[in-house]
Amino acid sequence: MQRYFLEESLSDYQTQPIEIEGEQYHHMVRVMRMKEGETVFLVLPKGPSFIAEIKGIESDKVICKWLYDEEQTKELPVEVAIVSGLPKGDKLELIVQKGTELGASEFIPFAATYSISKWEPKKVSKKIQRLEKIALEAAEQSHRTQVPVISTVLSLTELIVKSRSYDVCLVAYEESAKQNEGSQFATALKKLKPGEKVLLVFGPEGGLSEKEVTKLSEAGFVLCALGPRILRTETAPLYALSAISYQLELNH
Amino acid sequence: MQRYFLEESLSDYQTQPIEIEGEQYHHMVRVMRMKEGETVFLVLPKGPSFIAEIKGIESDKVICKWLYDEEQTKELPVEVAIVSGLPKGDKLELIVQKGTELGASEFIPFAATYSISKWEPKKVSKKIQRLEKIALEAAEQSHRTQVPVISTVLSLTELIVKSRSYDVCLVAYEESAKQNEGSQFATALKKLKPGEKVLLVFGPEGGLSEKEVTKLSEAGFVLCALGPRILRTETAPLYALSAISYQLELNH
Repeated sequence: MQRYFLEESLSDYQTQPIEIEGEQYHHMVRVMRMKEGETVFLVLPKGPSFIAEIKGIESDKVICKWLYDEEQTKELPVEVAIVSGLPKGDKLELIVQKGTELGASEFIPFAATYSISKWEPKKVSKKIQRLEKIALEAAEQSHRTQVPVISTVLSLTELIVKSRSYDVCLVAYEESAKQNEGSQFATALKKLKPGEKVLLVFGPEGGLSEKEVTKLSEAGFVLCALGPRILRTETAPLYALSAISYQLELNH
Repeated sequence: MQRYFLEESLSDYQTQPIEIEGEQYHHMVRVMRMKEGETVFLVLPKGPSFIAEIKGIESDKVICKWLYDEEQTKELPVEVAIVSGLPKGDKLELIVQKGTELGASEFIPFAATYSISKWEPKKVSKKIQRLEKIALEAAEQSHRTQVPVISTVLSLTELIVKSRSYDVCLVAYEESAKQNEGSQFATALKKLKPGEKVLLVFGPEGGLSEKEVTKLSEAGFVLCALGPRILRTETAPLYALSAISYQLELNH
């Protein structure tokens, strides 16, 4: 069933008609060719999500009626922010698409020392808009009830300041893999409590610089390995999110 | 350090000079412009892997000398075969590349009922060759000591026959997610013993047909969910491999 994220909160969505306009109207009527009587998933800005029936189609809006709330929670029990040292090409798009499917709450591009890719100031808002669109589509496709937030690109200092509002801050560090420090990651995951906020930092293709690792470590970030194999910059966040889901959602 | 998979077994690799010819010679000398005295990782067909020093460069071969074996194991403690219902476009390439990084031993394309993509018989060997090349490059990049095997495309009947040589056979099934059967997957992983062989089946974009699920289930495959979110056909195997690595390599 198609899923749409509504932009406005509706306190009386269970009783009042729900009007859908603009792009979503266009998608429902022109792209999906939906008819009266069909059902869709609608998601309110801060949840919940519910099944609604199309009651009427007008020239510029669709009128829906609430049927019942979706019961099963689709969101990870913790909020996970993925910090990606700016990677080359369109790898950040892959990270956002797959990371959204896997439950991330936030993506933070990070101008790392070894990032070959740079975000020119005048292109930042376009890049963020494009990533927001990818996150929205992936959230719809994977039946999520939250769309991850895309942050602007941060410097190391800004990242460290931002990290203070998270409960657990981890750095995926290749050298830790060589020292068999995988258990740090498992130890951190097992301590997580529902509702906590986790920040995970990944380097770009060339990895993090020693200075970056030292500064993050001094700021309280825990260095950890994600198994003995060397994962590419776009694969490591997907490993981490999958492991978090496995540990918190499946491994009761 | 660059990593090369040797094609021949060498029982006396620790004492005798090792000659590298052909494509790997070309890569070392022409692409990487390696010189005498530099070191490389060399991997024998069934392991072990070791560090070797370049002792001489001739017109058609490089002569290397063993320095020491690589100590840390890079391979998952179980063998994991990923069965992919033939997906659209180049998604199988992404599955093979990322799945190799994440430790898979084997990739088995599967002609599923809802596979829109078909492999024409005359193109099969070319497609396998291309996937083998992707697996080799990803194995080198992720520092593995085994290159995953790419199988030819199998029918449902062939898949069921093949499954008899595996210890544990699982099917990722979206309907199981709706019924919260995530714990089946965790239960199966926790029972795994080192050296066991696991077969994991994933449907194409349209999922598996009811008939396929019934037949696999009758053949002893266990249906399981990979968390509450709906994962794309190329994301689900990466989730499963990450969870296996987390459970067996990190979560001691």
